[in-house]
Amino acid sequence: MTVRAVVFDAYGTLYDVQSAAGVIDEAFPGRGEVITQIWRQKQLEYTWLRSLMERYEDFAAVTRAALQYALATLGLTPQEDVFDRIFAQYEHLTPYPEARDALTALKGRTLAILSNGSPAMLGALVRHSGLDKLLDATISVDPEKIYKPSPRAYALVEAQLGVRPADVLFVSSNPFDVCGAKAFGFKVAWIERVPPAKLAEGLAGGPLLRPQAMFGALRLQMEVLGVEPDHRIARLSDLAGIVQSCHSDGP
Amino acid sequence: MTVRAVVFDAYGTLYDVQSAAGVIDEAFPGRGEVITQIWRQKQLEYTWLRSLMERYEDFAAVTRAALQYALATLGLTPQEDVFDRIFAQYEHLTPYPEARDALTALKGRTLAILSNGSPAMLGALVRHSGLDKLLDATISVDPEKIYKPSPRAYALVEAQLGVRPADVLFVSSNPFDVCGAKAFGFKVAWIERVPPAKLAEGLAGGPLLRPQAMFGALRLQMEVLGVEPDHRIARLSDLAGIVQSCHSDGP
Repeated sequence: MTVRAVVFDAYGTLYDVQSAAGVIDEAFPGRGEVITQIWRQKQLEYTWLRSLMERYEDFAAVTRAALQYALATLGLTPQEDVFDRIFAQYEHLTPYPEARDALTALKGRTLAILSNGSPAMLGALVRHSGLDKLLDATISVDPEKIYKPSPRAYALVEAQLGVRPADVLFVSSNPFDVCGAKAFGFKVAWIERVPPAKLAEGLAGGPLLRPQAMFGALRLQMEVLGVEPDHRIARLSDLAGIVQSCHSDGP
Repeated sequence: MTVRAVVFDAYGTLYDVQSAAGVIDEAFPGRGEVITQIWRQKQLEYTWLRSLMERYEDFAAVTRAALQYALATLGLTPQEDVFDRIFAQYEHLTPYPEARDALTALKGRTLAILSNGSPAMLGALVRHSGLDKLLDATISVDPEKIYKPSPRAYALVEAQLGVRPADVLFVSSNPFDVCGAKAFGFKVAWIERVPPAKLAEGLAGGPLLRPQAMFGALRLQMEVLGVEPDHRIARLSDLAGIVQSCHSDGP
């Protein structure tokens, strides 16, 4: 196997979507956790549903609609400035602590993001976090007007980087994205941030659950979709080992 | 408006998907509620994800995979006969108590189901519950190899019943299905079984939630997808009033 390009998912993989919870909790004390979980879940659902309905809207619109939904479930209708302040968190998400070093260690390969994010959201995100200086390309699904896990979304990597799918190592912490990328033809590394035993523990405490435990149960376990990742790693910094163990025609 | 056909979603609309929880709880005491919620949520997600991945498998396969996922989140790997007994619940779901009378009251119009269910699952379900005697047709999305809310799924109604979308009243309790059907061109009635205030109450109790409250928050509130149902009703028996208030060329 040759790894000519390493392509990363953004939300949840390089950037921590849970990092928005603090600002939400300031606006709605005690509700930050539950709102964050419903927001993220609905954001993903709306990418899938709009793609299937053939009614694409960009990720900024989808993210706003999902936030509106999440707040409405709690009977909350915030003032516009509060809503905008929460939404703006998506352009200021915190990268995982090891993200910078992990990208630096992979230098020499083509490094890129392939994300559902709209070009404007992604541009702001990589600039604010400084990761733009370590990436060769930031690819948005937007030109195809369809979201992951459609094969048309993953095909943008070859179209924009000129690297064949078999020569791409795709990296994601999102199991649905791992399955979509693998089914498409990439080599795939899954970042399994929470081990299964820990997920099960979060559900074992009795009839009542923390929203984050329910979210973990729904989003952090490998999906049963008939494909499996090539590599399972615990963090981004484990990638260098995988790439080095593969043949490479990079420098 | 002319209503020539009333077409129902099956799972969650005519049949109570929560009615499987009892059998699950017998197999895994105290876990019936959480397993049922994750199972149903994943079942829907897998219909959306497989459709988008262009890797259709029928609803029986998707339902089995979702159950496998749900049990794995709790660290459970049941024996085959236990697994099969739980899965079999999907062919024996209980109709909502008012379903039979509501269908009887609509007699004279073409009455049908349009469901993600595979032909075998749907056939067993309507026979076991006796609703087959009240329905003119049971339409599965299976021939199109794609799930709701794809317009190709809803187009099966005209193909099989010969009724134009504008003359169809589509009935669903599933907000994503309501939005898909409305975007396609049907008139749509949403069965809003749990009022928003009750959903919000389920989330208001503090940091810990019942799995069913989290499920309700994710699945029972109207989606923010840019379309709205024509009618909001609390139960199936409210349909007769809607249909009677419309012009009709039925008998």
